[in-house]
Amino acid sequence: MMRVGVVGATGYAGLELVRLLLRHPKVKMTALTAERYVGQPIWKVFPSVMKETDLVCQPLEVEPLAQACDFLFTALPHKAAMDVVPGFIQRALKVVDLSADFRLTDPNAYEEWYEPHTAPALLKNAVYGIPELHREEIKKTFLVANPGCYPTSIILALAPALKNKLIDHRTIIADSKSGVSGAGRSAVLTSLFTEVSENFKAYKVAEHRHTPEIEQELSRLAGERVVITFTPHLVPMKRGILSTIYASLERPYSENEILDIYHNFYANEKFVRIHPPDILPGTADVLGSNYCDIGLKIDKRNKRLILLSAIDNLVKGASGQAVQNMNLMLGLEESLGIDIVPLYP
Amino acid sequence: MMRVGVVGATGYAGLELVRLLLRHPKVKMTALTAERYVGQPIWKVFPSVMKETDLVCQPLEVEPLAQACDFLFTALPHKAAMDVVPGFIQRALKVVDLSADFRLTDPNAYEEWYEPHTAPALLKNAVYGIPELHREEIKKTFLVANPGCYPTSIILALAPALKNKLIDHRTIIADSKSGVSGAGRSAVLTSLFTEVSENFKAYKVAEHRHTPEIEQELSRLAGERVVITFTPHLVPMKRGILSTIYASLERPYSENEILDIYHNFYANEKFVRIHPPDILPGTADVLGSNYCDIGLKIDKRNKRLILLSAIDNLVKGASGQAVQNMNLMLGLEESLGIDIVPLYP
Amino acid sequence: MMRVGVVGATGYAGLELVRLLLRHPKVKMTALTAERYVGQPIWKVFPSVMKETDLVCQPLEVEPLAQACDFLFTALPHKAAMDVVPGFIQRALKVVDLSADFRLTDPNAYEEWYEPHTAPALLKNAVYGIPELHREEIKKTFLVANPGCYPTSIILALAPALKNKLIDHRTIIADSKSGVSGAGRSAVLTSLFTEVSENFKAYKVAEHRHTPEIEQELSRLAGERVVITFTPHLVPMKRGILSTIYASLERPYSENEILDIYHNFYANEKFVRIHPPDILPGTADVLGSNYCDIGLKIDKRNKRLILLSAIDNLVKGASGQAVQNMNLMLGLEESLGIDIVPLYP
Amino acid sequence: MMRVGVVGATGYAGLELVRLLLRHPKVKMTALTAERYVGQPIWKVFPSVMKETDLVCQPLEVEPLAQACDFLFTALPHKAAMDVVPGFIQRALKVVDLSADFRLTDPNAYEEWYEPHTAPALLKNAVYGIPELHREEIKKTFLVANPGCYPTSIILALAPALKNKLIDHRTIIADSKSGVSGAGRSAVLTSLFTEVSENFKAYKVAEHRHTPEIEQELSRLAGERVVITFTPHLVPMKRGILSTIYASLERPYSENEILDIYHNFYANEKFVRIHPPDILPGTADVLGSNYCDIGLKIDKRNKRLILLSAIDNLVKGASGQAVQNMNLMLGLEESLGIDIVPLYP
Repeated sequence: MMRVGVVGATGYAGLELVRLLLRHPKVKMTALTAERYVGQPIWKVFPSVMKETDLVCQPLEVEPLAQACDFLFTALPHKAAMDVVPGFIQRALKVVDLSADFRLTDPNAYEEWYEPHTAPALLKNAVYGIPELHREEIKKTFLVANPGCYPTSIILALAPALKNKLIDHRTIIADSKSGVSGAGRSAVLTSLFTEVSENFKAYKVAEHRHTPEIEQELSRLAGERVVITFTPHLVPMKRGILSTIYASLERPYSENEILDIYHNFYANEKFVRIHPPDILPGTADVLGSNYCDIGLKIDKRNKRLILLSAIDNLVKGASGQAVQNMNLMLGLEESLGIDIVPLYP
Repeated sequence: MMRVGVVGATGYAGLELVRLLLRHPKVKMTALTAERYVGQPIWKVFPSVMKETDLVCQPLEVEPLAQACDFLFTALPHKAAMDVVPGFIQRALKVVDLSADFRLTDPNAYEEWYEPHTAPALLKNAVYGIPELHREEIKKTFLVANPGCYPTSIILALAPALKNKLIDHRTIIADSKSGVSGAGRSAVLTSLFTEVSENFKAYKVAEHRHTPEIEQELSRLAGERVVITFTPHLVPMKRGILSTIYASLERPYSENEILDIYHNFYANEKFVRIHPPDILPGTADVLGSNYCDIGLKIDKRNKRLILLSAIDNLVKGASGQAVQNMNLMLGLEESLGIDIVPLYP
Repeated sequence: MMRVGVVGATGYAGLELVRLLLRHPKVKMTALTAERYVGQPIWKVFPSVMKETDLVCQPLEVEPLAQACDFLFTALPHKAAMDVVPGFIQRALKVVDLSADFRLTDPNAYEEWYEPHTAPALLKNAVYGIPELHREEIKKTFLVANPGCYPTSIILALAPALKNKLIDHRTIIADSKSGVSGAGRSAVLTSLFTEVSENFKAYKVAEHRHTPEIEQELSRLAGERVVITFTPHLVPMKRGILSTIYASLERPYSENEILDIYHNFYANEKFVRIHPPDILPGTADVLGSNYCDIGLKIDKRNKRLILLSAIDNLVKGASGQAVQNMNLMLGLEESLGIDIVPLYP
Repeated sequence: MMRVGVVGATGYAGLELVRLLLRHPKVKMTALTAERYVGQPIWKVFPSVMKETDLVCQPLEVEPLAQACDFLFTALPHKAAMDVVPGFIQRALKVVDLSADFRLTDPNAYEEWYEPHTAPALLKNAVYGIPELHREEIKKTFLVANPGCYPTSIILALAPALKNKLIDHRTIIADSKSGVSGAGRSAVLTSLFTEVSENFKAYKVAEHRHTPEIEQELSRLAGERVVITFTPHLVPMKRGILSTIYASLERPYSENEILDIYHNFYANEKFVRIHPPDILPGTADVLGSNYCDIGLKIDKRNKRLILLSAIDNLVKGASGQAVQNMNLMLGLEESLGIDIVPLYP
């Protein structure tokens, strides 16, 4: 049984990893870290896992973790991740890192949007972890940079259109809406129930840090430099992202033509569901699952393609995709532990 | 004291009219109609107005209403409105109609998006009721077509940009998000709490009936035919609309240049608030009030203008604006009865 | 592989059965009925199960169901259930019925709270399906009356106290709070998002139909006739019940004494979690799972015991417990298909 | 025009005072304090009041406030209030204090539930500010202790029953449910949207600090020492309290008898609404208003009275009642500035 640890287990992505790993048939959770809760069993922090595990939160120390685990998930804030991941790699652990630190292949881009990179040598080995697009590289690497939640929803929705040159990439606008868990488990005013409920607003308009990783992947797909407009919004709900994406069509395709292209592109993908024209994706339809649901419409009056893409930001947008990557890295069946029916209503 | 009636008082726009008229210092509510509740005091339908009024719901009959009232709000579904409004006009009542029936000046456009129009003669007298744009005509007419909720948020946000030719109108995309009260007080599956809460989805993508009235007003402002892409979404909240609107700039303006233009355009408007660059509008900031809050950002990497516009869909998006129109039609001070501080949180 | 059908698959309890059965390792779903959706694949009704099943909704006809299935869940309104269950029993199917129709052993009690019973002969065979209290009888019967959601939360919380005569049963007050899915998937005004969100209210105070089944089971536990006060409330959330239960202590026990009794009573029960004194149960901690979380406090100033009991009303309060009962009736491991980690947040 | 200041203006009760005072016809807001935001206009903290006021947050310093104001609301945490209120009183300001510091007449009770009292001399002058029960004393005092939110809902509901000796006070159980704004505007984990939404739980069971003030007032009404059981719960909503209160009847009254007594008791009270038997109070029916809605049921099988009492915790439960008290203290018409129609839906 492969021994797996979660570094940063008491954030929401961390807890979601715990939820998934507890039911994974081929790996065993052997270590959890959480600086704030050292010495406490995780079920005291989250009574949802009472009677499920007796694991106790330990400090983030490389050596004990390297001894206790064969594989690690690092669910830390950016910067904190690149401080510790090299140590784990040196001790021959495989790592899926859920932070932004290894997502950008270009350290200058990282510096532009974040700060100077302190482990640039690892960037060439890090694979951007969307299995539907980079499966073979993921299987071979020891370090996966798990994608951001918004990027996952946007890149999966645009991939078939860009790959097949259906759209003019200079016209791409991604208007994304996220539940509040995307802001993490931090005690900040702007995440209070009283500030968020019955409220809807945009934030970080045209300046969100997920922009460069979205553009990096879209550029790969398009074969040329893609620059988009990206606007994130906060929705009064706990989980879920819906991205509404606009782009001008290169020629007047019908909806059925494009649907065929999408069905073919994702024909063998278990976790992508292409919706029929009369059913639009909603975040509640993927709750708790690793699905990415994609729908599309054409605005005939403008020759615009409108893509709609729904994920659970903590599953396909974070921890579910992370487990999917782990399965590939360990040579396991890709859907183990994440083959979950959405919880509705 | 002007005597005012509300036709269709037990829908949400109807109840909101009742709330506002109960505190209006210069008019008196004298009649309410509601087919489903004939004979019942309205406070038994809505205990929120218990001890506030003893008015009883009566049937929708032209003659008794014409005798009881000098002024009418018709808050009926489309089609039902144009069946009765001509009768009220003939009896010399002034009317603010909250349906779609008198918003489109072109009866063919109405037929294309709705059905054949049965009172086209009135269309030339009906004024589209956004006071900030049509104040003088509203003062003189006897029939105001009260705008849709989405159109109000979108038109007010775009007016200064179009009037000043800041943007290429062929690139306009309006991505709007509405609370559930916009769907009305109808017992339908898709409005159930269980279907809506923790859910976010688009609906009627590129085919919503508010499209033609938005384009009619934007075309007036631009001085030429404007065709947009419009995507409405449903947010798990009761009230509020936020529209995020994208358009390419005609030349590389700075945010401050554009803010100046917006401040000038709305300099004398009590109910429009232009936000400073560091504060983005949110629907909770206008709850229960007649304000339209507008913010803007420029995506410099794409030369796109991003407008953000927040209203309470039942106030500035419906009944508050209707009272604002009534005040103008009756020669009263424009803000009477609707000068309300938003309820936060 | 045992073949299982769900009668009434498009209510919320029905869909929850579908969710659970799709991952059950030892049974196979072979039939779904839903009068409103005959001929439609269930995934078109609930896109959450797209790519999960191609089963099509069929009409409720006894013969085809009896041929397609070895075991049936009937998730119908009361009255409708007792019309069809006898037919299934005659054809030698085992049945878990989720309605109220077979919960009361006394047909007069049923008539008092509902209407005349039309299948009273079956009542003596029907076992009230709380496995923690009636496991051995459930294993042997062909008809389980699956308990109501409120009763499950209240009976499990009170069982150790009544069995051990810790409390004066004449003082029992159960103040229960439920999410909106408890009202079912019916298009009624009172379940609209706009009516429920930011609202909290009681309903059917001291007259809810779950009262007689609660009292029947509490009387069994106490060994004498128990009459309680029961007040249900509606909470603006989708899932979850929390019951706060009050009773006077027979003598001044300490919290630890009572906790010991509770721990012993449920020592071998996988799905009951007794909380330590410093952690109170919350509905979010059991979301999507079959757990019943129980906490308790003593009000020393009044010698009252206060019990707090949380379940997911659609899982332990309905479909999860139904599957638990099926497992017992089929001689399977009791937790198969329902051994789920709660989804948090 | 009376000059009024708000000390602690950027908590939720503080902002609610600002909202109400902005529309009060007889007083003028002249000072706001907020340590965290000194030098900032309040509309930058709360964009909801943009264009409504230019007042800037100032530090909490007695002398400048005493010069700028004739009347003060202190909306501070307990302990902080008793540190500054004596200074204001010495400078001849009248004060409504919204903290707990002057609510208990007995300094020992304060010490038992909070900490040693540092201004006990003022306790004899402080009037407990429920106008419906203490109107004449409020008119004459210079210091009103504004009641807690839970106590307001519970005391108003029980007053007629206790005063008329309808119930056995030893059996009183108050099961209260509050929206999250009751926890204040503090960045704490337990108030995050992600922790509260779709969650329902009790807290501080049988140990909440509102207990002694509830019992103090109930004892006054009963004419003897009353000890109750009080359980507060957190509801996933922003505003509103519903208290469900149980007590055994002294003799078998009918609902109509008791309703008559309640109607008589509150016959002249503008802000109390006694519901008819077929309509139960809900928190949404009082949103934004100063109403307390009371309903009742008798559980005939147990001879128990069940009272239901709904308020907006920030209005009648805090700032609305505070303004009501100010009006009385200043000899103004009692409902000025708080005569608001609830916002529904």
